Amino acid sequence: MRLHGYFRSGASWRVRIALNLKGLSVTHSFHHLRRGEQRAPTYLALNPQGLVPALELEDGTVLTQSMAIIEWLDETYPTPALLPLDKVHRAKARSFALVLAADTHPLQNLKVLNALQKLGVSEESVRDWAAEVNTEGLEACEALLSNVDGPYCFGAAPTLADICLVPQLGNARRFGVDVRRFPRLIEAEAACLQLQAFAEAVPDRQPDSE
Amino acid sequence: MRLHGYFRSGASWRVRIALNLKGLSVTHSFHHLRRGEQRAPTYLALNPQGLVPALELEDGTVLTQSMAIIEWLDETYPTPALLPLDKVHRAKARSFALVLAADTHPLQNLKVLNALQKLGVSEESVRDWAAEVNTEGLEACEALLSNVDGPYCFGAAPTLADICLVPQLGNARRFGVDVRRFPRLIEAEAACLQLQAFAEAVPDRQPDSE
Repeated sequence: MRLHGYFRSGASWRVRIALNLKGLSVTHSFHHLRRGEQRAPTYLALNPQGLVPALELEDGTVLTQSMAIIEWLDETYPTPALLPLDKVHRAKARSFALVLAADTHPLQNLKVLNALQKLGVSEESVRDWAAEVNTEGLEACEALLSNVDGPYCFGAAPTLADICLVPQLGNARRFGVDVRRFPRLIEAEAACLQLQAFAEAVPDRQPDSE
Repeated sequence: MRLHGYFRSGASWRVRIALNLKGLSVTHSFHHLRRGEQRAPTYLALNPQGLVPALELEDGTVLTQSMAIIEWLDETYPTPALLPLDKVHRAKARSFALVLAADTHPLQNLKVLNALQKLGVSEESVRDWAAEVNTEGLEACEALLSNVDGPYCFGAAPTLADICLVPQLGNARRFGVDVRRFPRLIEAEAACLQLQAFAEAVPDRQPDSE
């Protein structure tokens, strides 16, 4: 399999963690987002949305959207499971993940921040926007875990929720958010980063890191 | 079960369709988003994110995030299935759904459009933003179906992809997008609206419609 990604892309980071947790090694293709390489015709032929990540399977099938890729990985390589077994717990883990993957990350990615600047929003206001979006998403996530035991987001093993949390906390820090406001989330992140699967997926350790 | 929603919310609309497809009837609670009722303390106690929809189960458990709710419905009430059986097809249907649910809808909801206006973006530019976001998402979706047989998004039965598509096309029209540019999507929408489950879920037919 070949993963098309970018070291700093939060969505690529999620898939790197999931692949590591499943013990799968893949070939990597890097697409430099700041240089617009994700809009190259050859890449658009793979993913018409022009976003990373995309996972190319052995038979040439291309899967896109990090959450869909991770669900596919979990269905195809069931051990270790990336979702709890109990149906309500699965829904809670997916909901937590979607607060970040749907309502947080897409509002503060490079594309949207560039679009805001083009609308005449000042650089400072764009940064405030990104920080505010991260803060709101993480606040909701902290509240969602208020009665849930750790050390991970949903108990004794990492799930899709942790896979989305760790990259989002990375983004939040880059935008200057004081993440100590979210002690339960920080506890989960610390537990995750003890695991090689998470530690090896961080942007700084990718070959295309600058 | 009780569904907390709002007639015009695209995410609530998705869950209404899914409930109808499963033949489940629920009690409805309406929260008027333009009046800010989703920020009322009683509602925030149910969903700390302050968004609709939320599905309250008989035992008081509250599920949030439309995509997580729909996956829960599909796991709990398996017939008719809302995802294809084949794993790659499941991934493709989820990916299509996420193009809309993660990369399109959250960028053009009421909350974001209000935030843009507060940043000094003109009303006209905000409308253009919403139209552009819808156009980009739907363009990607049209491309994703270029080699997939209909009449629905992914074949002979509606899936999560159709559940996300129909509300998004509704939004796109509200923002003035000429959706005839997307013939394959329009074909799928027409097939869906022949079904009572979709026809009865449209905003105009909800009791809180204005």
